Amino acid sequence: MNMVEIIEKKKLAQALTREEIEWFVQGAANGSIPDYQLAALLMAIRLNGMNREETVQLTLAMAHSGDICDLSALPGIPVDKHSTGGVGDTTTLILAPLVAACGVPVAKMSGRGLGHTGGTLDKLESIPGLRVDLSEEAFLRQVRDIGVAVIGQTKNLAPADKTLYALRDVTATVDSLPLIASSIVSKKLASGAQGVVLDVKTGAGALMHTTEASIELAQTMVRIGCDAGRRMMALVTDMGEPLGSHVGNALEVKEAIDALSGRVQGPLLEVSLELGARMLMLADAATNVADAKQKLMDALESGRGLDRLRAMIAAQGGDPACCDDVTRLPQAPVVRDVPAATSGYVQQMDTVGLGSAAQAMGAGRRVKTDVIDPAVGFVMRCRIGDRIAAGEALATVHARDEATAQAAGEAIRRCVAVGVQKAAPCKLIHAIVTHDGVERL
Amino acid sequence: MNMVEIIEKKKLAQALTREEIEWFVQGAANGSIPDYQLAALLMAIRLNGMNREETVQLTLAMAHSGDICDLSALPGIPVDKHSTGGVGDTTTLILAPLVAACGVPVAKMSGRGLGHTGGTLDKLESIPGLRVDLSEEAFLRQVRDIGVAVIGQTKNLAPADKTLYALRDVTATVDSLPLIASSIVSKKLASGAQGVVLDVKTGAGALMHTTEASIELAQTMVRIGCDAGRRMMALVTDMGEPLGSHVGNALEVKEAIDALSGRVQGPLLEVSLELGARMLMLADAATNVADAKQKLMDALESGRGLDRLRAMIAAQGGDPACCDDVTRLPQAPVVRDVPAATSGYVQQMDTVGLGSAAQAMGAGRRVKTDVIDPAVGFVMRCRIGDRIAAGEALATVHARDEATAQAAGEAIRRCVAVGVQKAAPCKLIHAIVTHDGVERL
Repeated sequence: MNMVEIIEKKKLAQALTREEIEWFVQGAANGSIPDYQLAALLMAIRLNGMNREETVQLTLAMAHSGDICDLSALPGIPVDKHSTGGVGDTTTLILAPLVAACGVPVAKMSGRGLGHTGGTLDKLESIPGLRVDLSEEAFLRQVRDIGVAVIGQTKNLAPADKTLYALRDVTATVDSLPLIASSIVSKKLASGAQGVVLDVKTGAGALMHTTEASIELAQTMVRIGCDAGRRMMALVTDMGEPLGSHVGNALEVKEAIDALSGRVQGPLLEVSLELGARMLMLADAATNVADAKQKLMDALESGRGLDRLRAMIAAQGGDPACCDDVTRLPQAPVVRDVPAATSGYVQQMDTVGLGSAAQAMGAGRRVKTDVIDPAVGFVMRCRIGDRIAAGEALATVHARDEATAQAAGEAIRRCVAVGVQKAAPCKLIHAIVTHDGVERL
Repeated sequence: MNMVEIIEKKKLAQALTREEIEWFVQGAANGSIPDYQLAALLMAIRLNGMNREETVQLTLAMAHSGDICDLSALPGIPVDKHSTGGVGDTTTLILAPLVAACGVPVAKMSGRGLGHTGGTLDKLESIPGLRVDLSEEAFLRQVRDIGVAVIGQTKNLAPADKTLYALRDVTATVDSLPLIASSIVSKKLASGAQGVVLDVKTGAGALMHTTEASIELAQTMVRIGCDAGRRMMALVTDMGEPLGSHVGNALEVKEAIDALSGRVQGPLLEVSLELGARMLMLADAATNVADAKQKLMDALESGRGLDRLRAMIAAQGGDPACCDDVTRLPQAPVVRDVPAATSGYVQQMDTVGLGSAAQAMGAGRRVKTDVIDPAVGFVMRCRIGDRIAAGEALATVHARDEATAQAAGEAIRRCVAVGVQKAAPCKLIHAIVTHDGVERL
């Protein structure tokens, strides 16, 4: 096998064989292929694509480049969920405890915030004392004991993906469908869940801006997962505005606790129930969506869901009392309303701009080494389609100091377009993608 | 300036600005841009191309990434010639002395053998004692004193090209028109000659296999050179078979001396005169091709050409007596004829195969560190179109030992297709490319 010949083939838009793909993925994992050759291949893949078979083989090779988490000792069918990244999108903290409360084991490896999007691990770490760096053994024990665990990726999970992802980031080759799909699905395969529900975000604030591109990504990933013998399906959900009203780490944990306590409803809970319902169905724990949602609502209303979150926080070293008193979460010293400049209807939102505003406040990292401020962020007080009067609060910022609050307020005002025309609220779910096909909603 | 943004632009097939090109070329030269980012950009350029303006800017930036050889102190208009690489193609050793003998300074930096093609420096070094690593100062002094010098590239000549060329070689991005053209022309610009004649080889044994592709490369290079203010033109010449009959380093020096001594004519001398004539014209030393060729033939017939070669060899530390007694050149111990297996006409030759056969005998390098055997190679005894009888010699091999002679003989026999049908001899010059246009012959 020869790397120049492999690059040459892809440069000429020919399909790579399974052996060639396995060879270069192994070389990416063990460092035997220099970065410059991998970079040239990544650009050739970005520009000339990969067919379905190549993408499946790439995914399998990356999954097998490191340890595969063995969940077979768990009772039932362990399920996981993955989001392609959004703003105010804390469905995991709501659905994981609810699904677990329905008797389905949730063994979830999550990620950190990336760019303008938040990350579940960063949110969880805003809970005082909570740890996400569990060993595989502790992870399995926790899922067996309390039904749910949300941790960071174990160290040797898909090391080839780590190498390739880091290279893509600095060689302008992130936006490649086969590379995105294989990166996501390889980690899901390696983390061991038998059933995976994918939440593919769509809209200006998402990885894919159009519904069709998002559906294509969803189909690619679902096909790979099913070809690899897993139960996998996807919802294409909206990211034309933040999903929940809270943006920022502790603020999003608070919103999740509020939802599990029955204190708030709305789009975040709705999408969490839609995703959670599919997780139950993949685990054969419900026969249809209505049945599954009812089971999840029973778990919520009975308090069993919040109880699972409490148990998970305690098991991972965090302060479980947060679940009963959200003021125990980190609080920002400066809390200010952001008044609307004009009256009208909220026409649209710049979701990337809102995510970046939170990042600039300290809720996210600009560079890997930045330390996150768990307390800061903002709460949106309007959604697209809402009527708002001049001077009324568009949002409330939770900042470290007055200057940051001021800057964030101005940024938020720029991100919310208010106009005289009526605007329709965003549709929450755009499509359901299964192995059998696409249902557009 | 940001390398990821530059890669991104080229990935989207947008044109890079002069500033962006200068920035990444400088980064390639000084090592501040990592190889993996350069490799991704090279693949994006290979797949999405560069327009004329970008190619000119890339060439200028690479030329200026190191020292520019200043030939302004030389009398007249110094000229140079560059070949894209062939087999049995030793025109430089014939035309450089002839052009110098006509009073035009020839300040030439040459290269080494690459793959199946030979290199002028390797040929020159087969002359006992001869050195090609002159300083710029010694180079200029020699051209001023005796009118001609052929040396290796000075150390800091187009360092950006060195980096990019090395990367292209290992990332399957050699075959890109803007990258080929800018690599060649940048070195010609940096080596300082005011007039440059390009010899773009065409055919199975050349960089470009078709006449049209060769013309396109020639046009691209001529445009760049003229845009950069130099006098530049190109001949597209045949590489469907070895140009001269001799293949191998000392053997090719012998053939050049034979030609300059008036002992042999044929295609090698003919193409040397065509190229040399254009050098005289670019230097304003002749008014038309016929006039120029006559001047060169006068120099040859009077012995002034051979005299310039003798002076050059002496100036560069070599044994000038080789010019009068070619047996002073390295001689291979085993000399064997390669008889034809069947009678018929020579239909075609595998020129790459012939070059590789010479390489395998030790006349070329497979890896950079291989040491060349100056004595070995072979002399072709037929050309395409010739009638040959079974048992008659197709070639004569000059080998280090019997086994190598045997293997080379078999390889040569495989490379020469003999059949019953008559075949036409190869056309030597396919096209003349100037700033004003293309003349197809």
